[in-house]
Amino acid sequence: MAGSIFGKWFRVTTWGESHGAAVGAVVDGVPAGIPLSAEDVQAFLDRRKPGQSKYTTARKEADIVEILSGVFEGQTTGTPVSFLVRNADHRSADYSNIRDIFRPGHADYTFFEKYGIRDYRGGGRSSARETIGRVAAGAVASKLLSELGIRLLAYTRSIGPHEISHVNVAEMQENPLYMPDAKAARHAQEYIDFALSENDSVGGVVECVVKGVPAGLGEPVFDKLDANLAKAMLSIGAAKGFEIGDGFAATRHRGSENNDPFAMEDGTVKKQTNHSGGVLGGMSDGSDISFRVAFKPTPSIARQQQTVTKDGEDTTVAIHGRHDPVIVPRAVVVVESMAALVLADAVLENMTAKMDYLKQIYTG
Amino acid sequence: MAGSIFGKWFRVTTWGESHGAAVGAVVDGVPAGIPLSAEDVQAFLDRRKPGQSKYTTARKEADIVEILSGVFEGQTTGTPVSFLVRNADHRSADYSNIRDIFRPGHADYTFFEKYGIRDYRGGGRSSARETIGRVAAGAVASKLLSELGIRLLAYTRSIGPHEISHVNVAEMQENPLYMPDAKAARHAQEYIDFALSENDSVGGVVECVVKGVPAGLGEPVFDKLDANLAKAMLSIGAAKGFEIGDGFAATRHRGSENNDPFAMEDGTVKKQTNHSGGVLGGMSDGSDISFRVAFKPTPSIARQQQTVTKDGEDTTVAIHGRHDPVIVPRAVVVVESMAALVLADAVLENMTAKMDYLKQIYTG
Amino acid sequence: MAGSIFGKWFRVTTWGESHGAAVGAVVDGVPAGIPLSAEDVQAFLDRRKPGQSKYTTARKEADIVEILSGVFEGQTTGTPVSFLVRNADHRSADYSNIRDIFRPGHADYTFFEKYGIRDYRGGGRSSARETIGRVAAGAVASKLLSELGIRLLAYTRSIGPHEISHVNVAEMQENPLYMPDAKAARHAQEYIDFALSENDSVGGVVECVVKGVPAGLGEPVFDKLDANLAKAMLSIGAAKGFEIGDGFAATRHRGSENNDPFAMEDGTVKKQTNHSGGVLGGMSDGSDISFRVAFKPTPSIARQQQTVTKDGEDTTVAIHGRHDPVIVPRAVVVVESMAALVLADAVLENMTAKMDYLKQIYTG
Amino acid sequence: MAGSIFGKWFRVTTWGESHGAAVGAVVDGVPAGIPLSAEDVQAFLDRRKPGQSKYTTARKEADIVEILSGVFEGQTTGTPVSFLVRNADHRSADYSNIRDIFRPGHADYTFFEKYGIRDYRGGGRSSARETIGRVAAGAVASKLLSELGIRLLAYTRSIGPHEISHVNVAEMQENPLYMPDAKAARHAQEYIDFALSENDSVGGVVECVVKGVPAGLGEPVFDKLDANLAKAMLSIGAAKGFEIGDGFAATRHRGSENNDPFAMEDGTVKKQTNHSGGVLGGMSDGSDISFRVAFKPTPSIARQQQTVTKDGEDTTVAIHGRHDPVIVPRAVVVVESMAALVLADAVLENMTAKMDYLKQIYTG
Repeated sequence: MAGSIFGKWFRVTTWGESHGAAVGAVVDGVPAGIPLSAEDVQAFLDRRKPGQSKYTTARKEADIVEILSGVFEGQTTGTPVSFLVRNADHRSADYSNIRDIFRPGHADYTFFEKYGIRDYRGGGRSSARETIGRVAAGAVASKLLSELGIRLLAYTRSIGPHEISHVNVAEMQENPLYMPDAKAARHAQEYIDFALSENDSVGGVVECVVKGVPAGLGEPVFDKLDANLAKAMLSIGAAKGFEIGDGFAATRHRGSENNDPFAMEDGTVKKQTNHSGGVLGGMSDGSDISFRVAFKPTPSIARQQQTVTKDGEDTTVAIHGRHDPVIVPRAVVVVESMAALVLADAVLENMTAKMDYLKQIYTG
Repeated sequence: MAGSIFGKWFRVTTWGESHGAAVGAVVDGVPAGIPLSAEDVQAFLDRRKPGQSKYTTARKEADIVEILSGVFEGQTTGTPVSFLVRNADHRSADYSNIRDIFRPGHADYTFFEKYGIRDYRGGGRSSARETIGRVAAGAVASKLLSELGIRLLAYTRSIGPHEISHVNVAEMQENPLYMPDAKAARHAQEYIDFALSENDSVGGVVECVVKGVPAGLGEPVFDKLDANLAKAMLSIGAAKGFEIGDGFAATRHRGSENNDPFAMEDGTVKKQTNHSGGVLGGMSDGSDISFRVAFKPTPSIARQQQTVTKDGEDTTVAIHGRHDPVIVPRAVVVVESMAALVLADAVLENMTAKMDYLKQIYTG
Repeated sequence: MAGSIFGKWFRVTTWGESHGAAVGAVVDGVPAGIPLSAEDVQAFLDRRKPGQSKYTTARKEADIVEILSGVFEGQTTGTPVSFLVRNADHRSADYSNIRDIFRPGHADYTFFEKYGIRDYRGGGRSSARETIGRVAAGAVASKLLSELGIRLLAYTRSIGPHEISHVNVAEMQENPLYMPDAKAARHAQEYIDFALSENDSVGGVVECVVKGVPAGLGEPVFDKLDANLAKAMLSIGAAKGFEIGDGFAATRHRGSENNDPFAMEDGTVKKQTNHSGGVLGGMSDGSDISFRVAFKPTPSIARQQQTVTKDGEDTTVAIHGRHDPVIVPRAVVVVESMAALVLADAVLENMTAKMDYLKQIYTG
Repeated sequence: MAGSIFGKWFRVTTWGESHGAAVGAVVDGVPAGIPLSAEDVQAFLDRRKPGQSKYTTARKEADIVEILSGVFEGQTTGTPVSFLVRNADHRSADYSNIRDIFRPGHADYTFFEKYGIRDYRGGGRSSARETIGRVAAGAVASKLLSELGIRLLAYTRSIGPHEISHVNVAEMQENPLYMPDAKAARHAQEYIDFALSENDSVGGVVECVVKGVPAGLGEPVFDKLDANLAKAMLSIGAAKGFEIGDGFAATRHRGSENNDPFAMEDGTVKKQTNHSGGVLGGMSDGSDISFRVAFKPTPSIARQQQTVTKDGEDTTVAIHGRHDPVIVPRAVVVVESMAALVLADAVLENMTAKMDYLKQIYTG
């Protein structure tokens, strides 16, 4: 497997399998001088911790992070930051009944076809536990960004057909679905409960908004800011779609509706609307960046499904392990973390956009 | 600007501005022994050529490609393949009225904010002419893939609200919109005509299907096949969304509907449905890969729009240059080319997935 | 700090400081199906372990490696292999007297100038302990190579003026300097003893030979095999020079002497001499690869030396910590490991050199 | 072939074969706002132009460079800079006698083994004409560096046994060997003349000195400044060795001799000697950077040499084409250009070393 490294300047390598000894990440390219503690990182990890409500897997993991390098006397030193989280509660026994079966909707079949070998215990590397490394790294990226006044907020936009009608952060913190609309959250919970009662699972949409982004981040051709966000989001397991600004709806609008007019406000250029979602020509345009990610329903369901064994025999399977009936609530912090990685990378890359910046740093 | 290089192994560098001397691309990492001629590449470029109907810009460009290196006696040699296309019809005069104005919906403002300098002539590097390099490189990637039995087809799925109800390749070749449904194409043309009559523009969706992909392409964590496709697609100017398989619709389905059952057919594993769009866990699953890209309406419109000058004064602008009223038809070949680049890269990367492959090549 | 990642396909990330909690490495891009155990890796690490003779630092470290991921049932799975080695004996107290001083010949000054922060304990990231990650990764690379019949051997070629006159592996294993010439080793030991008696240190040269390399590894322009070896070697602390084949001596030879004639032997092409050191035009030529690396004397010496404090005051310093009087013997396994990383990378990259290889894998 | 791209941030892609239509390069990652004209680049190219004395090949090439993109109104715009140089005088006929023969000391055999295809005309991609792209890119890098007060000077240090005893730039410009010591140059010319009279060729050493480098450039682990220089240098055809500072000689020195003492001078830290060659721990230490590159004798000689055909028959060959009897003089500007690429890359990378720099640019 290649492809466990993300980013060009702020480079994150994640490693670890669901039922191995541990999972973790290394971040290379962290500038020196960012205040950072294990608590900062733990706070992020706690947001994705399993076992917090009936809507998340019952697997119990303390998920206590250890920072092994790169921080000295409370600050990053410029050297790689290494994170370690031990896997505590890995009952491999749970998985023995599926060791020779390709679960529908999972990566079992593709993993086996690619490598000829498969760590069948809990999805191995395709497990949601892989995201622990992403979130730990995202915590560092978020600290970096907050030093520059850039703030991210992700939340659940919809579960099945139940979509929020407003964003109220206080409401979001009062439901296990991270929906910033209490009423929509209530309907969504009923919807999940009903699916669960039928041994089924559901999907939904996560939205993320980034505030305080200066204009000009992102590179105008292949490494557009929105292109990198799209990749980051589709790299999350179960993600099936990405849209920025008006997204797919923009395909049904006219140019005169979709274009955001510019006007001067207090001596600075301001867009009067934000159909673009904060990006023009692949670079941030100074407005809020706003995008959405589609997540399919959890593939692990307790219903009988038709499938095959790795020896090529037809069979059926029902997945009775400990699984989330909906991926979305725990994906919220992953979306936010991946967005932070993309933005931190863009912030670093943009440092070399013009000679004036180089002169400012080197010749004062 | 960084970010003019795409791919990890099949690496494409594009260069050139709309109104500079030329545009082009260099492809590093092309395996030796692929049959390739200038005609192969020209056939791709002709599909994106402007001036072919009233729905594309009236700019006249022969866009004749020259292959400057990497091909000897009709085959690739393993060395970089370099393409050159001279810019023939670049009337810079057309752009003098917008040299100090930030066009709404364009990259003028963000370019200026990032670099402090802007080649105002025709969008410079943000022009659709940048895609010439992508398409030339895509032609090489397509040749590579076709040697392995992998075939791509992109087409217009919808223009505004007018969506195809079937895919008929013959019908696609008979309308200037590349819609594989003659009736939808007719409605779409009327829709565009009406928008044009109001000095306005429209958007739409391009769909791409890839057949003959072996299972196991793509890397399971950050470099998922669908993540790389998402990046490739969002890197195309005016793209605002990406979805694979059931995409956003999957968020409203149950797990039991969305999971594709496996079954044995003639001794091989076959998925019975294809909600996944041909990718499971970031790796190709042996089914057709199928994805969609949302394009916003062309931002250049002949209507008066509110904007500002680069000196910070409010003003209005109407864009009277030669512009496509809809980007979608010319984006079709760009989508197909970018998909070919992603797949060629995945095909190369996968060569090292298992030790068996290395032994097969090195120790026979 | 960027630059803690090495390789393009076989990608190693090392992390950790001398006096932090641990050091380690992650290897991404390991093909599935290589037999690998912790013992394989431990055997490599034991070759660089401190405290084994009076010629190496008295620091005691068990340096027991833990493999945290990427291996299942005795084989690599294709997922990242993560290594962890805890730092046991890190007496930070030893370093308090140098915390505000820039040690001559060390990275203290440059680290401080670059980052504005310095982990003064034992050199931090510039410590030789960073090489633990390299050696662990090198063990994996060596396993991969050995599966293809490629074998590496590094040894001490000279200590100060004392150079070997022959290579006898048995003799090498009987002296703490890893010199494959018992007589030269004796003289070298006396030479070191004398320098130690004067509170001084010495340098030397490591040589590495790689056998069984097929022709054609390495890429002909920037990523020449010898260019990548040169980088790998100069990336080792205290390395000051690299030469391949006849190296600097070739500058005083004639073309007619330096060219290696080809001739047929048993139906295959064989070079009759090996002045090239096994590389022509940046690609392996089928002969043994043979190169040398120059190491400067250990900068830490117990003599008084002139220097400055970080507050800009002149002072003197004598380094009384636990240090090797000569770096060379412990560098031997590091040189071999770095060479293995370069070759493993080249072996993977070369899998995509020609279309024939792709057809062999994909279309059988 | 992969590996035609050099650098991480200042990324150069070269392309083109000796006897194809043209050669060139694209540079991605050039900051906006560097003054640049075709004349700046031409001045560099003229230093490597063939046909200037009896010591260089008689091949006549005007080698006029065209800048196709990335420069607008006399300044770089931030977009990729593309260079084109047409191949004028490519008499393929000259090479017909060697089309089926592997020339000793050349890349013919390795190229054929790697790709199964070989452009036999003049070495194809392994020709010295490939360096045109490097030198054009080096001209841009040198402009960038000169804006920051960093200046490079390369020259011939020795030809065969004839070494300079001083560096006088005026003397360097008066002999075709670029030796900054008139007397050594005289002896070197006699030495070459004698080798030529015997149909033979000679080698030599190029030295490069970089002044004005601030402390802290380079990354402390794998991407050490000297490691990247070593790679850059060994990537030049015919290079066989690299050393920095005292290099191989340092292996025979004591630590007390080799360490450079620090002392305060006019309120700043200054090294009192420069055995390190301007780099400590992989980062520039504020002294002049000084390194040497060994070049083997030109492999093309007019003497009979033993070799084989590609069909596996023993034969002999004498190379009567137009070739330099010594590579060194024309390699001087290539060494300087490659060093400029490495330093430009390091200057860009170092922009993100500390949070203070980011705050300076983003929050003023």
